[in-house]
Amino acid sequence: MDRGKRALAEIDGQAGQKVIDALADIAPDFATYLFEFPFGDIYSRPGLDLRSREIATIAALAAMGNAAPQLKVHIEAGLNVGLSKEEIIEILMQMAVYAGFPSALNGLFVAKEVFSDR
Amino acid sequence: MDRGKRALAEIDGQAGQKVIDALADIAPDFATYLFEFPFGDIYSRPGLDLRSREIATIAALAAMGNAAPQLKVHIEAGLNVGLSKEEIIEILMQMAVYAGFPSALNGLFVAKEVFSDR
Amino acid sequence: MDRGKRALAEIDGQAGQKVIDALADIAPDFATYLFEFPFGDIYSRPGLDLRSREIATIAALAAMGNAAPQLKVHIEAGLNVGLSKEEIIEILMQMAVYAGFPSALNGLFVAKEVFSDR
Amino acid sequence: MDRGKRALAEIDGQAGQKVIDALADIAPDFATYLFEFPFGDIYSRPGLDLRSREIATIAALAAMGNAAPQLKVHIEAGLNVGLSKEEIIEILMQMAVYAGFPSALNGLFVAKEVFSDR
Amino acid sequence: MDRGKRALAEIDGQAGQKVIDALADIAPDFATYLFEFPFGDIYSRPGLDLRSREIATIAALAAMGNAAPQLKVHIEAGLNVGLSKEEIIEILMQMAVYAGFPSALNGLFVAKEVFSDR
Amino acid sequence: MDRGKRALAEIDGQAGQKVIDALADIAPDFATYLFEFPFGDIYSRPGLDLRSREIATIAALAAMGNAAPQLKVHIEAGLNVGLSKEEIIEILMQMAVYAGFPSALNGLFVAKEVFSDR
Repeated sequence: MDRGKRALAEIDGQAGQKVIDALADIAPDFATYLFEFPFGDIYSRPGLDLRSREIATIAALAAMGNAAPQLKVHIEAGLNVGLSKEEIIEILMQMAVYAGFPSALNGLFVAKEVFSDR
Repeated sequence: MDRGKRALAEIDGQAGQKVIDALADIAPDFATYLFEFPFGDIYSRPGLDLRSREIATIAALAAMGNAAPQLKVHIEAGLNVGLSKEEIIEILMQMAVYAGFPSALNGLFVAKEVFSDR
Repeated sequence: MDRGKRALAEIDGQAGQKVIDALADIAPDFATYLFEFPFGDIYSRPGLDLRSREIATIAALAAMGNAAPQLKVHIEAGLNVGLSKEEIIEILMQMAVYAGFPSALNGLFVAKEVFSDR
Repeated sequence: MDRGKRALAEIDGQAGQKVIDALADIAPDFATYLFEFPFGDIYSRPGLDLRSREIATIAALAAMGNAAPQLKVHIEAGLNVGLSKEEIIEILMQMAVYAGFPSALNGLFVAKEVFSDR
Repeated sequence: MDRGKRALAEIDGQAGQKVIDALADIAPDFATYLFEFPFGDIYSRPGLDLRSREIATIAALAAMGNAAPQLKVHIEAGLNVGLSKEEIIEILMQMAVYAGFPSALNGLFVAKEVFSDR
Repeated sequence: MDRGKRALAEIDGQAGQKVIDALADIAPDFATYLFEFPFGDIYSRPGLDLRSREIATIAALAAMGNAAPQLKVHIEAGLNVGLSKEEIIEILMQMAVYAGFPSALNGLFVAKEVFSDR
């Protein structure tokens, strides 16, 4: 769990902490699971670097097209672990091929929002 | 279109050619679009390396969970452009976090099939 | 249709009536279908109790992740037919396993909104 | 219900009857609902011709990408109500724009199977 | 590309131009792809009339349920190419059969918004 | 992890063990995560009984429509924890309302296969 907390702080920064805080009064155990499984287990595995992991996550969330808040957090996270804005745009444009132009467009507009907030 | 044909051959190899061949008697124009947009336009862009592009595609197809034949082609493609088997397994396991354990499991079993065919 | 109207009133309460009212000027026949098929036919069947039916609906809507307004109505409905807040939280957390953490998180935040409105 | 049975026979032909038969020993009431709501209610409405209704259904099923058996039935149904093979191919190719190339490809291969069975 | 620009202007009108404008500072190449593939290639093909193409698109976007902004644009586009409001309502109601009542309801409320804006 | 192994054995029985075995040569760590998070953490929580948990899982997997192997395992699991065949049929039919008739039909045919294998 400590490993997960450190990974979450490193990757998602303040955006991740806000999610944890928002869970406190409704499902505090779910915050524990978020630390333990995605961050303590998966993101801490040595077999794939964090930059590659964020490429995978941004692509998946944009393709699924039903998780805009989490896509926002992970576009932030991608910038935190070394992806450039240009690379993130490339990933999102590529999703037009696999999930259609609407998913790509909606992902690009989430990125636009994140980039202009910085 | 020539750029797309070269990109398709480099990335997808024989698996890509089989898809093109299967379209010949039903929708030959769609083969042209496949050459032009995904491969001639998107995969040929310089802003993201092919290894990163295949990470994004494998993640998206596994997360969507409704495109097993294309996931198979792109696990092959990932190996062709330099991803290791271990890295592909990491990407697929990570999808449990974003799309659930069934999508990850079904992706892992597609990978198992590709790896054992080689 | 009368059976459906009574079932809708019992299960969805005011939230269901608002949906019916909103359809009046655009698709009044669709309100009739809503009374007849989901409520007159399905929810009125004796083979499964209403509490179990709402567990199924909350789980499905959270897992699909593209129907937030309907998930809100059915979290209300779940409380109306006897599910506790804690049980609804359990159902939503469980969806992390089958549809990923984003679907579970987005469902939990819909529940948070419903619970604080009461 | 009689109206639904006639509509199902006209639109889906033998393929629809096979689905009804397969339900007999597991969920016979569901066959009744299939007659009543989709066919007795929706497809019998005068506001949209059957050709247009089948365009909508083929597009939706191909885009969702998780209902191959039903897509097969409705490609048959499209031919039954006057769509040409070429028009069906156009609809399926167009889905590449909205749901990605994999959904379009998988839909085209379902059509190929239907066309060669005839 | 010129053909695509003309098709986009004819079909999507001002709503399409707004999307193109919004891409200018984040992904201008994606606007080019939008002109070229969906509009220059697909919508310009002679094998299916524009009215039928918009039926397919409205159905697909409503069924997928994760692309409300694009559904709004294409309900406008449907009206532009000759669909009546009543026909668009029929298409959306029919999606209850294939994608469930929530997708149909959410589509109907997008249509209500478009119709009242006119 | 021991708690998860016991829960998996109780709920999924042999079908769960087969999944674990199939992972051994490709992703053995993923079997560990399956024991730990879904079964050790979620299914072992006291706030919701196993019968209710399986209602939620069967509903979600049928609604998503892209996880037939897992739906099969959980229809078995539902029978193991006390759901009757009739109740499982009710859950699957209800999914027609929320995810469309194709998802319900495909779920019913998975159930038919499980019931006839017993």
